Amino acid sequence: MRAVRVVGYHEKLEMTEVDVPEATGPWDVVVRIGGAGVCRTDLHILEGQWAEKSQVTLPYTIGHENAGWVHAVGSAVTNVAEGDKVILHPLVTCGLCRACRSGDDVHCENSAFPGIDTHGGYAEYLLTSARSCVRIDDALEPADVAALADAGLTAYHAAAKAARRLTPRDTCVVIGAGGLGHIGIQVLKALTPARLVVVDRIPAALDLARTIGADVGVPADGGQVEAVLDLTGGTGAEVVVDFVGENGSTAEGLAMTRQAGDYHVVGYGENVDVPTIDLVSSEKNVVGNLVGSYNDLQDLMALAAKGLVTLHTQKYALDDFQQAVTDLDNGDVRGRAILVP
Amino acid sequence: MRAVRVVGYHEKLEMTEVDVPEATGPWDVVVRIGGAGVCRTDLHILEGQWAEKSQVTLPYTIGHENAGWVHAVGSAVTNVAEGDKVILHPLVTCGLCRACRSGDDVHCENSAFPGIDTHGGYAEYLLTSARSCVRIDDALEPADVAALADAGLTAYHAAAKAARRLTPRDTCVVIGAGGLGHIGIQVLKALTPARLVVVDRIPAALDLARTIGADVGVPADGGQVEAVLDLTGGTGAEVVVDFVGENGSTAEGLAMTRQAGDYHVVGYGENVDVPTIDLVSSEKNVVGNLVGSYNDLQDLMALAAKGLVTLHTQKYALDDFQQAVTDLDNGDVRGRAILVP
Amino acid sequence: MRAVRVVGYHEKLEMTEVDVPEATGPWDVVVRIGGAGVCRTDLHILEGQWAEKSQVTLPYTIGHENAGWVHAVGSAVTNVAEGDKVILHPLVTCGLCRACRSGDDVHCENSAFPGIDTHGGYAEYLLTSARSCVRIDDALEPADVAALADAGLTAYHAAAKAARRLTPRDTCVVIGAGGLGHIGIQVLKALTPARLVVVDRIPAALDLARTIGADVGVPADGGQVEAVLDLTGGTGAEVVVDFVGENGSTAEGLAMTRQAGDYHVVGYGENVDVPTIDLVSSEKNVVGNLVGSYNDLQDLMALAAKGLVTLHTQKYALDDFQQAVTDLDNGDVRGRAILVP
Amino acid sequence: MRAVRVVGYHEKLEMTEVDVPEATGPWDVVVRIGGAGVCRTDLHILEGQWAEKSQVTLPYTIGHENAGWVHAVGSAVTNVAEGDKVILHPLVTCGLCRACRSGDDVHCENSAFPGIDTHGGYAEYLLTSARSCVRIDDALEPADVAALADAGLTAYHAAAKAARRLTPRDTCVVIGAGGLGHIGIQVLKALTPARLVVVDRIPAALDLARTIGADVGVPADGGQVEAVLDLTGGTGAEVVVDFVGENGSTAEGLAMTRQAGDYHVVGYGENVDVPTIDLVSSEKNVVGNLVGSYNDLQDLMALAAKGLVTLHTQKYALDDFQQAVTDLDNGDVRGRAILVP
Ligand SMILES: [Zn+2]
Ligand SMILES: [Zn+2]
Ligand SMILES: [Zn+2]
Ligand SMILES: [Zn+2]
Ligand SMILES: [Zn+2]
Ligand SMILES: [Zn+2]
Ligand SMILES: [Zn+2]
Ligand SMILES: [Zn+2]
Ligand SMILES: [Zn+2]
Ligand SMILES: [Zn+2]
Repeated sequence: MRAVRVVGYHEKLEMTEVDVPEATGPWDVVVRIGGAGVCRTDLHILEGQWAEKSQVTLPYTIGHENAGWVHAVGSAVTNVAEGDKVILHPLVTCGLCRACRSGDDVHCENSAFPGIDTHGGYAEYLLTSARSCVRIDDALEPADVAALADAGLTAYHAAAKAARRLTPRDTCVVIGAGGLGHIGIQVLKALTPARLVVVDRIPAALDLARTIGADVGVPADGGQVEAVLDLTGGTGAEVVVDFVGENGSTAEGLAMTRQAGDYHVVGYGENVDVPTIDLVSSEKNVVGNLVGSYNDLQDLMALAAKGLVTLHTQKYALDDFQQAVTDLDNGDVRGRAILVP
Repeated sequence: MRAVRVVGYHEKLEMTEVDVPEATGPWDVVVRIGGAGVCRTDLHILEGQWAEKSQVTLPYTIGHENAGWVHAVGSAVTNVAEGDKVILHPLVTCGLCRACRSGDDVHCENSAFPGIDTHGGYAEYLLTSARSCVRIDDALEPADVAALADAGLTAYHAAAKAARRLTPRDTCVVIGAGGLGHIGIQVLKALTPARLVVVDRIPAALDLARTIGADVGVPADGGQVEAVLDLTGGTGAEVVVDFVGENGSTAEGLAMTRQAGDYHVVGYGENVDVPTIDLVSSEKNVVGNLVGSYNDLQDLMALAAKGLVTLHTQKYALDDFQQAVTDLDNGDVRGRAILVP
Repeated sequence: MRAVRVVGYHEKLEMTEVDVPEATGPWDVVVRIGGAGVCRTDLHILEGQWAEKSQVTLPYTIGHENAGWVHAVGSAVTNVAEGDKVILHPLVTCGLCRACRSGDDVHCENSAFPGIDTHGGYAEYLLTSARSCVRIDDALEPADVAALADAGLTAYHAAAKAARRLTPRDTCVVIGAGGLGHIGIQVLKALTPARLVVVDRIPAALDLARTIGADVGVPADGGQVEAVLDLTGGTGAEVVVDFVGENGSTAEGLAMTRQAGDYHVVGYGENVDVPTIDLVSSEKNVVGNLVGSYNDLQDLMALAAKGLVTLHTQKYALDDFQQAVTDLDNGDVRGRAILVP
Repeated sequence: MRAVRVVGYHEKLEMTEVDVPEATGPWDVVVRIGGAGVCRTDLHILEGQWAEKSQVTLPYTIGHENAGWVHAVGSAVTNVAEGDKVILHPLVTCGLCRACRSGDDVHCENSAFPGIDTHGGYAEYLLTSARSCVRIDDALEPADVAALADAGLTAYHAAAKAARRLTPRDTCVVIGAGGLGHIGIQVLKALTPARLVVVDRIPAALDLARTIGADVGVPADGGQVEAVLDLTGGTGAEVVVDFVGENGSTAEGLAMTRQAGDYHVVGYGENVDVPTIDLVSSEKNVVGNLVGSYNDLQDLMALAAKGLVTLHTQKYALDDFQQAVTDLDNGDVRGRAILVP
């Protein structure tokens, strides 16, 4: 089969012919790829930024946002069968550690990360585990949802955690209506009737935010903290979800948060730097957010099946992988770039 | 009646004769003071540190940690009656705002703070509200529990919040076995069978901690983070409660916290300064903690009645108020100083 | 002012001229009635069914579903002011008991129930407490929302409790799309993206249910349990909310509930009669539901302000009270009958 | 190896020589039995009561309460290693269904039950799965804890669920201080400072209950409901855990439960038969309880390691299996009978 591989850092990806993987282990699943997302992380991998952390041996097949059809299953697989349409959780988890036994598999003590530290999905077939396979609805196509496997799942996870405490009277601020924020807004809209206030620098992003569920758009023009305080009678929002995490958004996000409220960190870049006296006197919480669990991905796919979460994609043939990577690097992709074998 | 008043900042307190307050409003309660805690905050008030924030008019009666016997009640009071032994929640709250209606009265939008912004308890009688009165068990004496009304209540609140997620398999680290930590350890011991690891600089504090429930004492000698990691198989503790909040304890506390764990800020002084990437990749939570609610004080008094939380006190006659203040300022009080009219 | 009074059981209501009530107590609020719901409970009162339980002294003014404008307030009232549009929680609660202090005021130990055990809202003015007043949005009219104060609030409470555990993958069955069910469906639709399956005997009720949010309508024709099992792959629904509670709905509701699921009782009539072995082996929960709290009413009014919960009403002048009562008794009211002074 | 087998219903068990099982599958674990509990369920199996439900093929090895040492592991096992001391969760679960992925493995859609529907632990070795193995503390011996794997785990599960809402002010009633109740009381004592009231017919059981943590013992002499109401100021207990479930205990348990309280069903026999109007007006919950999850067993073993839960056992050599069964049938076992190979 064809597979697109990292052959060296600061070198171009290369298409190679390799063997189709086989389901030799009992929980193995081989998936015929229907779509593989091209992600900014892939650019970083090529720049060598992940080399030390992943310890991956070159060459290897890149691509960590994958969906397709089950091609073959190991002897113990009961949750999917050949022919099933599936999206793949980005991690292959052990199933035995305390985190895995508690439904919190993202914190698995023994996980692999296809496309990062083992072979990924820029290929015709991918070897994964039954534990990573989420069946998707008949109405969904792998190439349309593949990119939800990573960024979309992160946004879902944060939004779903945030929504748990929101009541119809509350206000939730979303900082950043870009890739993750765009999903986060749709998820929040689906999960809670709380008022959604979206903050972004770009007017077009605010316009888009309003069409997908934002009740109010606030330009990030320096007056955004005051604007949120004005909207909330001076008290701030019960929950703030920060998909930016840099250029001052953390201090602003905390300033927009009500007493006893939650400030969720999703985007990253700068430090959260806050006096303990302020945390104590306001009793605010700073909540970290990693990618979502297997259950989160199941829930996200349920929302997608209902048409409540959609993603704009720009599709490329697998052979055009270089064009997709170049377009992404040049900012020429609208929505998410997807490779279709 | 006698009352000890702030007559000017950077001046000594003065004993004066004033009228006994009356229960004119329907929810008013007049309490005959049985004990009033002398707190470090009182020293700060005398230094003028609260002047701007409290906007209190001098002279006024100081003392915010109060317990005693109900002397008179207003027409609408149904929760206490004349003669009842009570401890007083430090805040007089409105009962009508959203926070009050949700049991979260500490975040009341219209509260008063006797001893800080209105007359307090260094006196024979104090005027408060039915909403602040917690009846105490026959087995408890006002002078023994008064000091639990403030610092004790803060420690209870943080410990009870922390305990909610602790299982018998978990480890909870308490940083600081001083005044608040001493109560926090007893509360945690009463609420959870999780392993309690206490970190403190002072060997005697660790010895005391062990006698009141700590399973392990760790000296804060620079090796405390490593010690906690060693105790937890390298992963850190599910929950860390930091009663110090300065001299590096925040970075150390976060470093001792397990992935997806909670780091509780109770003590204050320095900044929490943490890269967003660390919060995201570890999915840790930084949890602010203010003083406890009215319900928390009820729960704390239930623990005190069962003998599960005790406090060492050093009693002074009300007329000896200056001696108590001086002793506290000089570090000559073991446990808490209490004025007894 | 005019007031419609119960003068004897099994007698007709009478219009009388009485004094306008005054706000003499500090938390008193006098409300100029904008709309008072005519409820089936009112018919039961006239039949004497509540006489023993309420111990009310005749004559008294009936009417327990009230909304209007604040006319006068007592000295301590801070949450509403003269002129505010308000809906009234059906209970006047004490604010001091444990339930009230925990936001669970419905279980108040010292409550009054205007229209049941004291003067109600079939009148021009009503005396209530600040604790019962919920300000409503400018976009809402008292006569349009008054009937949400009782049945609507009960439906909200059950639906909101039920929604807490529902995920996008789950199914929620609503049994009964009548008065309460009609509100419950709208609330569930607003609070959760879970699939809503509505069961009712009447085809028109199912049609209406679909227009307000039901994903599937199931006729209660004897095959409803099997239909729900078919819809859920044989496992049953994660949550069932039973607004009927008679004619076999409890056994059917439990049979429709998945293992470890919740069966909510809202409507009443028959007994829940279930073998303990079935509760144990299935680990199902049977959840009782009373009317909602003050906070629930605030949340429901937030949904109403967003247009997410609406009620069909049929308005009558206060002077036409007898016509309204007769119409209700004859089944000639579509939606809810409202008296407008 | 030796194995004790069911060779026919209404026949005696037989000791046979069979092959030691091997760990051929990747998650297989072979355990050298250190202790196997002799349970009343085993008597029921011999009477044929489980034949239809389990569909087990005779002959097979009985014994579902097992602990011992890991003898061999499959290729994918990472949570235990040869030589580890382990107790075995009674179910072998799939790890792939929704319940398993959520930490709620007791509701697994594809589980096996060694000793019931496949070979169990009245033998020298047992084949199980890595997913069923819980490592136990060095201080614990397999033969001492084996019987906690079933009844103990059920009691833990109910008690831990019950404890979640208990505060220091609350009262928890335990009905039945027999086998399960005895563990439940110890677990509740470890998890909550709430007052524990234990109800039992037998004075000696109440005496024992007091020594292991009961604050109050109430004889079940017909006055137990009134006694609990007296103890709680007429309101009833926040939580009631019923380990009996027959002879009227369900109606009594519900009558002892406070408004908005939880009545937990653990023991079974009779029907819960309660008017819906009572559930609605009191807003009580009836909570079903099955055996605990894998995580529950981990937590229970943590309590056992701390010495907070202990069990009286009467040990028999494996060869004396018939004596153990006979003793149990005759009521001659104090605590739990354990077979030691
Ligand atoms: Zn990605
Ligand atoms: Zn980048
Ligand atoms: Zn794992
Ligand atoms: Zn203080
Ligand atoms: Zn307030
Ligand atoms: Zn009504
Ligand atoms: Zn009350
Ligand atoms: Zn019956
Ligand atoms: Zn058993
Ligand atoms: Zn399973």
